[in-house]
Amino acid sequence: MKAWIVAVGSELLTPFRVDTNSLAITERLNTIGCDVRLKFVVGDDVDELAGIFERGIGKIELIVCTGGLGPTEDDITRDALSRALQVPMHVDEAIVDRIRQRFERRGMTMPDINRRQAMIPRGATVVENPRGTAPGLWVERNGTYIALLPGPPREMTPMLEALIAERLQPLAGGAGLFRRVLKITGRAESDVDARAQPLYNQFLAAPIPIATTILAVMGQIELHLSATAPSRELGEAALDAAAQQLRDLLGPIIYSVDGRPLEAVIGDLLRAKALTISVAESCSGGLLSSRITDVPGSSDYFERGAVCYSNHAKEEWLGVSAELIAAYGAVSEPVATAMAKGIAERSGSDVGIGITGIAGPGGGTPEKPVGTVAIAVRTPAAKQVRTFQFIGGRDMVKFQSAQAAMNMLRLMLLDG
Amino acid sequence: MKAWIVAVGSELLTPFRVDTNSLAITERLNTIGCDVRLKFVVGDDVDELAGIFERGIGKIELIVCTGGLGPTEDDITRDALSRALQVPMHVDEAIVDRIRQRFERRGMTMPDINRRQAMIPRGATVVENPRGTAPGLWVERNGTYIALLPGPPREMTPMLEALIAERLQPLAGGAGLFRRVLKITGRAESDVDARAQPLYNQFLAAPIPIATTILAVMGQIELHLSATAPSRELGEAALDAAAQQLRDLLGPIIYSVDGRPLEAVIGDLLRAKALTISVAESCSGGLLSSRITDVPGSSDYFERGAVCYSNHAKEEWLGVSAELIAAYGAVSEPVATAMAKGIAERSGSDVGIGITGIAGPGGGTPEKPVGTVAIAVRTPAAKQVRTFQFIGGRDMVKFQSAQAAMNMLRLMLLDG
Repeated sequence: MKAWIVAVGSELLTPFRVDTNSLAITERLNTIGCDVRLKFVVGDDVDELAGIFERGIGKIELIVCTGGLGPTEDDITRDALSRALQVPMHVDEAIVDRIRQRFERRGMTMPDINRRQAMIPRGATVVENPRGTAPGLWVERNGTYIALLPGPPREMTPMLEALIAERLQPLAGGAGLFRRVLKITGRAESDVDARAQPLYNQFLAAPIPIATTILAVMGQIELHLSATAPSRELGEAALDAAAQQLRDLLGPIIYSVDGRPLEAVIGDLLRAKALTISVAESCSGGLLSSRITDVPGSSDYFERGAVCYSNHAKEEWLGVSAELIAAYGAVSEPVATAMAKGIAERSGSDVGIGITGIAGPGGGTPEKPVGTVAIAVRTPAAKQVRTFQFIGGRDMVKFQSAQAAMNMLRLMLLDG
Repeated sequence: MKAWIVAVGSELLTPFRVDTNSLAITERLNTIGCDVRLKFVVGDDVDELAGIFERGIGKIELIVCTGGLGPTEDDITRDALSRALQVPMHVDEAIVDRIRQRFERRGMTMPDINRRQAMIPRGATVVENPRGTAPGLWVERNGTYIALLPGPPREMTPMLEALIAERLQPLAGGAGLFRRVLKITGRAESDVDARAQPLYNQFLAAPIPIATTILAVMGQIELHLSATAPSRELGEAALDAAAQQLRDLLGPIIYSVDGRPLEAVIGDLLRAKALTISVAESCSGGLLSSRITDVPGSSDYFERGAVCYSNHAKEEWLGVSAELIAAYGAVSEPVATAMAKGIAERSGSDVGIGITGIAGPGGGTPEKPVGTVAIAVRTPAAKQVRTFQFIGGRDMVKFQSAQAAMNMLRLMLLDG
């Protein structure tokens, strides 16, 4: 099956917003072997959008359109579809009732304007929106299926899942494009690429060929594998084998073969070893705590985090003495070590992490330029401290600091 | 002038890559009053791309196309243009010479394949590429200007600048499209929209008409204003006046008229009043600290942050007694208040914030469902505590908690 994706919203034609929904949609469509041929971004303009629908009908098998299903006059997707199909719209009172109930559950009265969201072009069926007021729509015309979904990802995603399972999968047959993302941190892209190179051609020549792409993003490298296979089983088996070959070759620098972020990986390791953790941060400013606690259930192992910008806080909460700071500087391995020790001992946690550095843009010196970060990690079995020199702006230094700290911990926990 | 932007490259139709060139192109086109009406992303497919050119010619004034100008067979942009214009291509030996010299300066021999990059459709003129081998092309047909630029941003950007200065600016006259983003938090989109509605038509009817778009994103609302004006001065003046009218109408719920995030806004308020701040977080897990410290120079006013997941940490660091927690529950206004008091007093900071809630997905009860968050803020002048009921997943509850806490502080600081 071949598809177009259309993102609707004038804000997507400004310099400030990029359409990211299409990435998630592509990923899900690919898994059922559906190939995306064109993507469009169109403003809140009923003529332009109707024109796209008109061009697609009878030509492409599937059009997935996101956005423009809200209650305001700007929200023109329903109108554009009605125009392209040349059918009238009517208000579906059952939808009005559901929207009204949604408001009532929040103790609010439904504004009249929301009746617009219950308008449906004749012949279209409704796709339930469990997380919002805007229902989706589904319609077929001249061999083209058209799905309208709301723009907010948290509403769109479950609706897309339902659409795939209930309507698209049966149309697609079993074949699919299957993908796997391996995540690596702590190495240079060129280094990983050079080491993995010999496997790439081997993968391509296999009975189920696997294409590889390497992608370096902030503080981590991703190896993307994709296999076109006649069934999910065969595709996944081929990807499993390829992932295993890469693991054998590259070793533990691969931290995830299933898309899990680093914070989830260390969470599982901590849970498996029944260890608790507390962290002390300076330059990363709470980002490490925040990432660790992004994981559902992290309260099982995360005890506390200290964000100590001031030396006073480092002394009071972590027992890092003013003398130590005076002797080595706040950004130093001895201070990072003392922070890790202090937070672990004072919280009674098994694992302690200390991060101190210069996030910039100010505060750098010739000896300790912006991006200098000392990180100490202690577990019941081991202690480590390292100094990193990160590049990039304040946000990148913060991210890489949290990333490097979690990776040090991961490797130490794997070791024993 | 109205424009289409076309991004070419099969990698842009995978789940891993998003077209970001179009943002930079939009920004530059907007400054000369050129409005982007549609964006396309197309694979390395000569039929699809030629089809887009054919649809645009005679209909849209400008098409800016990036990518597909490399030397390989995948690079089909030149072929697609030649097909759409129905003219043959020839090899421009002057371009071949320039490419050959470029290789020679690097001590290399030009591969034969690079001759492809010197193919130009009859009638097109060359746009120099100072940073790469792929020259750009420029052609006019039936009132439509078409610019082909390479995909890599570092090559594309200077070529776009030259194109704007030498070819597009003279076509555009002095006019421009100028934009302003107003940010609002703590209100429902429909509420803001209903209140601002009367101004929208007034803005559109003004001598310099201003279009408005309302956009609700996680925990905040944005009002986008855009004015087409004969000069930057007039455009900015019209936007200033419109922003002021919206401020007069909506009051302090508007927290930013210049794109600054909430953490920067409260940073400026704290700095202006010479106040220091410390924060105590439970369910937001360090996100509030992390956002506050995203602002360069925040070490001037941010003293420390406590991420207290455990009741023990709340007691030890913040002096929140086990009795209080037992009496009201960890998620309660009295506990949030005690957290704010504890962190402010113990850190010696002027401002203290306490956040305690249920981020989910687990931990909810019928009385305190997931998303229940109590937030207390104390400044030297005032104390406030509120309980919120946020919707969405764990990340949204975290974000909205941090957002609501900063907004409470902002409104209290504005009050005195």
